[in-house]
Amino acid sequence: MAYTNQNGCLFPNRTIRHMFKLDPNKPISDSQLEQLIHSGTDGFVVGGSDGVSEQKVEALYRRIQHTSLPLCYEMTQADAFVFGFDFYFIPIVLNTTNLDWIGQRHVQALQIYDSRLTWLPYETLPYLILNPNCKAAELTCAKTDLTIGEVLAYTQLSTEIFHIPLLYIEYSGVYGDLTLVKQIAIRHPNVHIFYGGGIVSREQAEEMGRYVQTVVVGNVIYQDFERALQTVGI
Amino acid sequence: MAYTNQNGCLFPNRTIRHMFKLDPNKPISDSQLEQLIHSGTDGFVVGGSDGVSEQKVEALYRRIQHTSLPLCYEMTQADAFVFGFDFYFIPIVLNTTNLDWIGQRHVQALQIYDSRLTWLPYETLPYLILNPNCKAAELTCAKTDLTIGEVLAYTQLSTEIFHIPLLYIEYSGVYGDLTLVKQIAIRHPNVHIFYGGGIVSREQAEEMGRYVQTVVVGNVIYQDFERALQTVGI
Repeated sequence: MAYTNQNGCLFPNRTIRHMFKLDPNKPISDSQLEQLIHSGTDGFVVGGSDGVSEQKVEALYRRIQHTSLPLCYEMTQADAFVFGFDFYFIPIVLNTTNLDWIGQRHVQALQIYDSRLTWLPYETLPYLILNPNCKAAELTCAKTDLTIGEVLAYTQLSTEIFHIPLLYIEYSGVYGDLTLVKQIAIRHPNVHIFYGGGIVSREQAEEMGRYVQTVVVGNVIYQDFERALQTVGI
Repeated sequence: MAYTNQNGCLFPNRTIRHMFKLDPNKPISDSQLEQLIHSGTDGFVVGGSDGVSEQKVEALYRRIQHTSLPLCYEMTQADAFVFGFDFYFIPIVLNTTNLDWIGQRHVQALQIYDSRLTWLPYETLPYLILNPNCKAAELTCAKTDLTIGEVLAYTQLSTEIFHIPLLYIEYSGVYGDLTLVKQIAIRHPNVHIFYGGGIVSREQAEEMGRYVQTVVVGNVIYQDFERALQTVGI
């Protein structure tokens, strides 16, 4: 694949600047999927917090698999594994207050998938969830009232204690604190940072894209499709 | 230092086969320290579960700092930092049931030490604590009644989700399950594995040393000093 890096792995990868996040549990037409594919985006992430099943992921995958753009699957449930994606993200939540999201669910899943993991193109995707009012924060019992010092300590936990080369700053549903994102980015120049949350225009995508490697656009696809199309081209 | 690896880092390092673990909270004579230094061991780890303070660590460090052997400090408390060691271990506990030991204490400590971490020679040391009756298991609320599948999943969490190149199999006080240690080692040929627990003879050190990179000898130093000296030479 043209997108893979020196290690033959899709991420870290500084050429993927914009991704659309598709929720297997939300309705979208074939025509809309085609428009997203030809929008100028650099790839797709499939994943959601609610009502995800193997059947729904598989169905969505089949509808987009003809694209040459990279297709990634964020696997949040061990019982919803689908073959064929170009890359698999395995999320952990750095600022969770529930051990499940920083190891326990993974230990359970690893007992099922075992050595299969080692031949999958995958990377751990550590989330920092910063919007207290989103479903992801509720689901993962995230502690979101953090000082800047705490936020930076969580990112250090991820990169310097755990050695994970990716980081996802998640403001799901609201546009995030640009100053905070900038500080994280300055602190971790070698980490591939994803930003997601509240992006509804190309200006916002460009603004966040000045500090992070990849801007992820999700909710607006389902809320205002035409605006979603306008976020690409950064 | 002659012991450092290609990255200029002390660990992973396959030449360090035997280490003595010194507890800053337990009494030991200067003569005994000299005997340990000249015993043929490959290095020292300073650390303990109980009553550790900066003063006690500093005092012990000063008594052994003249050796050319590598001196490592396992830093379990943010308030007991001592400069001068050749290498710093930052422990996490893989099979803990308390979030503190797999991130929260680290996030607190990182807010104090901040960027200092990046210029310290350090590595994360993930523990798998397998003896239910030891102080470390009690202190860290470790879940020790694990199946082999669970044990292997915890080691995968450490190496394949977190990407940490070290692993410490801790049986503190009792000699461990050789078959289990062997299975972990076979599964992770590129991980530097430490084994600690119940070693009181060279035969035991050699036996465990067939599967792990480094055998750590601790308790017997304080229980039967002459036997401790006999564990070296593997």
